[in-house]
Amino acid sequence: MSLMSFFNRRTSAPVARERLQILLAHERGIVGGQPDLVAKLREEILAVVRRHVMVEHDNVQVKMNRDADISTLEIEVEIPAPVPVGAR
Amino acid sequence: MSLMSFFNRRTSAPVARERLQILLAHERGIVGGQPDLVAKLREEILAVVRRHVMVEHDNVQVKMNRDADISTLEIEVEIPAPVPVGAR
Repeated sequence: MSLMSFFNRRTSAPVARERLQILLAHERGIVGGQPDLVAKLREEILAVVRRHVMVEHDNVQVKMNRDADISTLEIEVEIPAPVPVGAR
Repeated sequence: MSLMSFFNRRTSAPVARERLQILLAHERGIVGGQPDLVAKLREEILAVVRRHVMVEHDNVQVKMNRDADISTLEIEVEIPAPVPVGAR
């Protein structure tokens, strides 16, 4: 399945960091409505994430794409590894 | 790109409803940590969505998948079309 293959892409070597990806797709039907739903959700979901993980501004990438019927949003958050004890 | 082709899958005929999809992937690095991040985000992101759209319980599908290194979460929300004026 293409979704799973997207999530499962890995770098060739394991690295000491975590990654969180959030993808949104809003498909409007022929009735339209809620034109700014994705923009609203973007800010509030980022606020939710920041409640749980220490997120540096530079470590958040946001890509937004608006089409006539579909808006998509991709948020990628790199969570740096904690500094090991003894390395401080 | 596989992500876009996933988002762009459409039914053969347009239907009078909206659809919101939220996909999360949490990839833990070799340091581990945050084991329940996706479960926490699931509840809070659903609360965020409910602030903006009228969501019936039956219209929310949640699929969660836990792997050793990656947790994925898929939330799909169907937003019913408003009843047209005159049809009430």
